[in-house]
Amino acid sequence: MYSLEEIQNLIDKAIENLEIYREPKELYEPVHYVFKTGGKRLRPVLTLMSCNLFSNNVDEAVIPSLGLEIFHNFTLLHDDIMDEAALRRNHLTVHKKWDQNVAILSGDVMAILAYEYITSCREEILVDVIRVFNKTARQVCEGQQYDMNFERVLNVTAQEYLKMIEMKTSVLLAGCMHIGALIGGADSKNAELLYKFGHDVGMAYQLQDDLLDTYGNTEVFGKEIGGDIVANKKTFLLIKALEKADEKQQIEIHHLLKRLEDNPKKKIRVMKKIFDGLGIQELTKRLASHYYISALKNLNKVRVPEERKIQLKQLADTLLTREK
Amino acid sequence: MYSLEEIQNLIDKAIENLEIYREPKELYEPVHYVFKTGGKRLRPVLTLMSCNLFSNNVDEAVIPSLGLEIFHNFTLLHDDIMDEAALRRNHLTVHKKWDQNVAILSGDVMAILAYEYITSCREEILVDVIRVFNKTARQVCEGQQYDMNFERVLNVTAQEYLKMIEMKTSVLLAGCMHIGALIGGADSKNAELLYKFGHDVGMAYQLQDDLLDTYGNTEVFGKEIGGDIVANKKTFLLIKALEKADEKQQIEIHHLLKRLEDNPKKKIRVMKKIFDGLGIQELTKRLASHYYISALKNLNKVRVPEERKIQLKQLADTLLTREK
Repeated sequence: MYSLEEIQNLIDKAIENLEIYREPKELYEPVHYVFKTGGKRLRPVLTLMSCNLFSNNVDEAVIPSLGLEIFHNFTLLHDDIMDEAALRRNHLTVHKKWDQNVAILSGDVMAILAYEYITSCREEILVDVIRVFNKTARQVCEGQQYDMNFERVLNVTAQEYLKMIEMKTSVLLAGCMHIGALIGGADSKNAELLYKFGHDVGMAYQLQDDLLDTYGNTEVFGKEIGGDIVANKKTFLLIKALEKADEKQQIEIHHLLKRLEDNPKKKIRVMKKIFDGLGIQELTKRLASHYYISALKNLNKVRVPEERKIQLKQLADTLLTREK
Repeated sequence: MYSLEEIQNLIDKAIENLEIYREPKELYEPVHYVFKTGGKRLRPVLTLMSCNLFSNNVDEAVIPSLGLEIFHNFTLLHDDIMDEAALRRNHLTVHKKWDQNVAILSGDVMAILAYEYITSCREEILVDVIRVFNKTARQVCEGQQYDMNFERVLNVTAQEYLKMIEMKTSVLLAGCMHIGALIGGADSKNAELLYKFGHDVGMAYQLQDDLLDTYGNTEVFGKEIGGDIVANKKTFLLIKALEKADEKQQIEIHHLLKRLEDNPKKKIRVMKKIFDGLGIQELTKRLASHYYISALKNLNKVRVPEERKIQLKQLADTLLTREK
């Protein structure tokens, strides 16, 4: 079995060795820039760990795992255009560093590179790998569309929100687990259990994200707490608060949502007080735990020796108790 | 064997029956709009005809052929954003009818749908089909980048121009022929001959495009002649003229390129006169014929009964003697 560190080293080395610089350079320079400037590499890590559950040799999964990472980076690149984001991982976004056309086209070629890498797996499992990835990739686009729709809609239900984060985040983590398992030689039943594991870890991870932005520890979190509240972002916390609020609290929340710039600290303080009154933090933690437990249940059902699962359990723990 | 008309009917019916409307509708409505509002369907026609060379049953090639068409439409959709084009096939472009974000994301999902349809071919040939398509798709992006680069460069050589149209147009027609042949059961040698056939037809087709815009018959062509000249478009004609011009003619051409709006008819007349003095029309026709003959030579080498090739030869003839 590989340790997390060994897996991360494998991935870093593979990315370093990847020949991305092709002609025309105007097309591939931004791909290189986006792909090589970091991120947590969570998707390839999950892919290799899932493969490693079933096989002691994860080499075959390395290039496909980078395909999943490059697909993720492609979606971020295009999302950043749509959101007009200027920074990503403390670097200028591609459409800011170059221009929008470059960002569109480099993104497109990244999507194709993703397919190239992912379909480099062995022939015997190719049909299944493609089927999983096609579906996953389509759902990620659908998730992004739901996310954009929400910006224009007043009332988003908690159910709709969960569906959105499922599509936008969870299915790709699930797809990584599924594909990693297939490459490792898992049968379809085990592979599907790992899909579910990845799915539920993704849901818990995303809820944790919402929690951290409001309830995180500023020093550990690394950025100001309350950004979501200030920006009126429709997080699970806000949606659930609106759902549970009585008439008076509803008015209070809507009043706060109208306050944009004047006193952000006060806005955060008052909104948190409303959240607290409604037990939003607890309720969100409970839901995240529910997903976490469900993830572990599915991992428990996977028919491999228990000691092989330790790494994945540890990773899930780390992701879900993280403070940043 | 299927006639051209029968093949077109097959394609039209398949497109009609295609279930594109999924949720969220904001994502799939533009896909439906782009995909269902026409075009020549040249790519699926070529795919099915190539398949039909080897197999009497082309049904298996229908969905993959639509994948190639939807990929083509995806590239047009994103190209239209980059070129800020307002119209495509007499309809508003997606980024005009909806907005830019819709156009980016709907394009993305079309690229994925393309893979979904293309990889629905039978398992036995899947590896080869994907290999051909991955390479083709990447080259199309590279071609678009070269095309964008050319707008910013003063001197484009004829060789660079041919490389650009090869990537942007020819390789996809070639890929259609190749994939159609594989689905029809062709061996790799025959499939590669058809790739070359499609490639050379594409080159001739694109040169014909440049010729028609300057030397077409207005009534048949359906739009004003000389649009490329007025817009200073770096066509093969202009590039070759700059290459062959003596110093005096160079100055004349550059003088014309600086005249933008004032007298388009005169600009067209004077530029055509320079072209004529340099024998540009003849020279371009000769090159198109060269590709056309090369295409037929490769088709001749394909080891199937000659009578099966008649349809494809007729189609190539039609494409290359077309007046619009």
